[in-house]
Amino acid sequence: MLNLDDGSSATDGPLGELNPAEMAVVHLIQGGSPLSRAELARRLGYSRATITPIVAGLLRAGVLTEEGEGVSSGGRRPQMLGLNGRLGYAAGVDIGATSVSCVLADMNGQILDRHDEEADVRAGPEALLDRVAAVISHLISQQAGLDRPLLAAGIGVPGPVEYSKGVLIAPPLMPAWEGFPIREFMQRYFPSALVIIDNDVNIMALGEKKAGAGKRLDNFLFIKVGTGIGCGIICDGVVYRGSNGCAGDVGHICVDYNGPVCHCGNQGCLEYMAAGPAMARRATEVASAGGSPFLAERLVAQGYLTAVDVGHAAASGDREAGAIIRESGRMIGGVLAGLVNFYNPAAIFIGGGVSEVGHQLMASLRRATLNRANPLSTRELRIEYTSLGEDAGVLGAVCLALDSLFTVQQD
Amino acid sequence: MLNLDDGSSATDGPLGELNPAEMAVVHLIQGGSPLSRAELARRLGYSRATITPIVAGLLRAGVLTEEGEGVSSGGRRPQMLGLNGRLGYAAGVDIGATSVSCVLADMNGQILDRHDEEADVRAGPEALLDRVAAVISHLISQQAGLDRPLLAAGIGVPGPVEYSKGVLIAPPLMPAWEGFPIREFMQRYFPSALVIIDNDVNIMALGEKKAGAGKRLDNFLFIKVGTGIGCGIICDGVVYRGSNGCAGDVGHICVDYNGPVCHCGNQGCLEYMAAGPAMARRATEVASAGGSPFLAERLVAQGYLTAVDVGHAAASGDREAGAIIRESGRMIGGVLAGLVNFYNPAAIFIGGGVSEVGHQLMASLRRATLNRANPLSTRELRIEYTSLGEDAGVLGAVCLALDSLFTVQQD
Repeated sequence: MLNLDDGSSATDGPLGELNPAEMAVVHLIQGGSPLSRAELARRLGYSRATITPIVAGLLRAGVLTEEGEGVSSGGRRPQMLGLNGRLGYAAGVDIGATSVSCVLADMNGQILDRHDEEADVRAGPEALLDRVAAVISHLISQQAGLDRPLLAAGIGVPGPVEYSKGVLIAPPLMPAWEGFPIREFMQRYFPSALVIIDNDVNIMALGEKKAGAGKRLDNFLFIKVGTGIGCGIICDGVVYRGSNGCAGDVGHICVDYNGPVCHCGNQGCLEYMAAGPAMARRATEVASAGGSPFLAERLVAQGYLTAVDVGHAAASGDREAGAIIRESGRMIGGVLAGLVNFYNPAAIFIGGGVSEVGHQLMASLRRATLNRANPLSTRELRIEYTSLGEDAGVLGAVCLALDSLFTVQQD
Repeated sequence: MLNLDDGSSATDGPLGELNPAEMAVVHLIQGGSPLSRAELARRLGYSRATITPIVAGLLRAGVLTEEGEGVSSGGRRPQMLGLNGRLGYAAGVDIGATSVSCVLADMNGQILDRHDEEADVRAGPEALLDRVAAVISHLISQQAGLDRPLLAAGIGVPGPVEYSKGVLIAPPLMPAWEGFPIREFMQRYFPSALVIIDNDVNIMALGEKKAGAGKRLDNFLFIKVGTGIGCGIICDGVVYRGSNGCAGDVGHICVDYNGPVCHCGNQGCLEYMAAGPAMARRATEVASAGGSPFLAERLVAQGYLTAVDVGHAAASGDREAGAIIRESGRMIGGVLAGLVNFYNPAAIFIGGGVSEVGHQLMASLRRATLNRANPLSTRELRIEYTSLGEDAGVLGAVCLALDSLFTVQQD
């Protein structure tokens, strides 16, 4: 195993050289409280004679640090072992259709810095990922006196991901990204980094589980309503990805077999009927037909309408805007009722841009879900906006990076 | 720990007295190949000094047996340890709306005997469970020379089950069973037995996982189409029950918001629109209106029509019957497409009485699913009839009993 303190460069990929027993020790310590050697041995089923040299090697390599003495259970007080937060950095990246957020964290998940900016995924993967790499490098360069490598990056993208390969498959919003080797591209900038790609709503669900209102829940859903509609599934405490890694594609569940044709080619998909663009489309029709002075005025001023405009109109008492929002909520809730019957989650958290539309959307969505679903499934069901606001994704991306660092072997 | 060989009676509940370390040893051995002491120690992370007395105790109690010598890895050949199949019996019970199946197995899951008979759940829990107990006792009494207790029973019931309590909650087909203490009732007959109650389709899914075409699959669905429509969910190799134990209630997913009122009170539920009774209802209308000579003749002869009659008519070339079947298949497939998008299973197995309707149902159901679902989710998706026919439930019930025996603590 490599000794980071000997000045070896970041290109050596230090954590890739941990053996399985070392990985198991680090994984136990990571993200929890410090542990003694005796406690590590007990939890891993190792003898003291086995654990002692493993810990000694990890201390020498600078992966673990001694964090002072713990409570004695008879005899000498044990030295407690923690993960060396300054071993290197982890980055969380949340790529949206029109924006990118990056956070930099230490190995214990402590957020050190962040940067958000507008971006357009349609510019293609190279341009956007060049910029992401520049942002991460800049955030690292701002960390005074800590010349440490980026060891892990979690990247959320707004499209279907084949998780095992880390590539997008037929992404409707960003066709130029299809099959693009994001992992390898990023590793050209950060050769020591484990790079994990996941769907944006999966990382939001993970953020809610690790840092939000889902902390104590084993089974819940995270629904993102924005330009599209997607779902992250937490099952027994971890992200459920399905057989091909594309579970949670709820935006193309049918709500009307005779409905309009969606960009996916099917008719009456939830996303096409109820997401942000659908609300904007209907609002534009209403405004043009003279049905809403508020929306008509906003349309003239801006030249276009968004779902958030519809929310503002509804908040000001505009009846047509209220009806548009309730109709979207009713359709989303109808699909959620089916998912509640099937999956029986403890909670549904709603996030994404359309959550800014306001309480009328939540009220109608919740009513439709509760009206239609099995009473036993809804007895304790919570339906609420995400507790993390816009940060669910980027916080989840850091968790994904750190969670994977000591469990995933990557070539 | 109790020694079964000393003639102690079944009322002592021998397995309830295993401590957690003993349970862990037995659970490792159960259902697999025999293991040596060294292998047990390695897998459990125990030292040889720890494992030796545990195994000695289990051998003395007759829970384990020595099964001959294994292959040496240097030094003396190890004694291999297996579970004593003759320690006691396990029963699997599959209660349908109109029938009961019971199988008797040994502790290794070897089926010893079985009995099937007609029954009516509407007669109430006491009458039916008295009969089940009599059948199990009879099956045990037929086992020559083996005076051993029933140690576990798995019971599948056609209604929603609160799994942790083992009671039915608002079961539409069997209202008299609501909240009935099935476990305690059965334990009056079999005081040594761990009794586990589950929804019928959950045990079918478990049967498919343990003994059927789902053996090597981690994530799949088992759809039962009969009087109702239900779904068993296998997630990461085990039955997923959801937050309140009622996951898989797909029969009441909406297929038509303006459809007819279901017995659950909602409109346009899949079950009401597409299950066996819906096909029979539509067939009766067609026959009465003179649309199908085949069905009209069958209606006159029997006084009623079933989904299987519709299948026979379709097989004989009756066009109206074919249309009824295709319509049911289309509706079921439409809901399955949504579940495939959400859950991305590796396979969907179809079972239950309506699977006897024939290949036209499967063809239209499959077409509707594949047409509507996300292409990545369906790339490797298998949709087929259960490999176990009518036995999926009763085999799953035995697996449930044996799986639970060394993992569940029951008062």
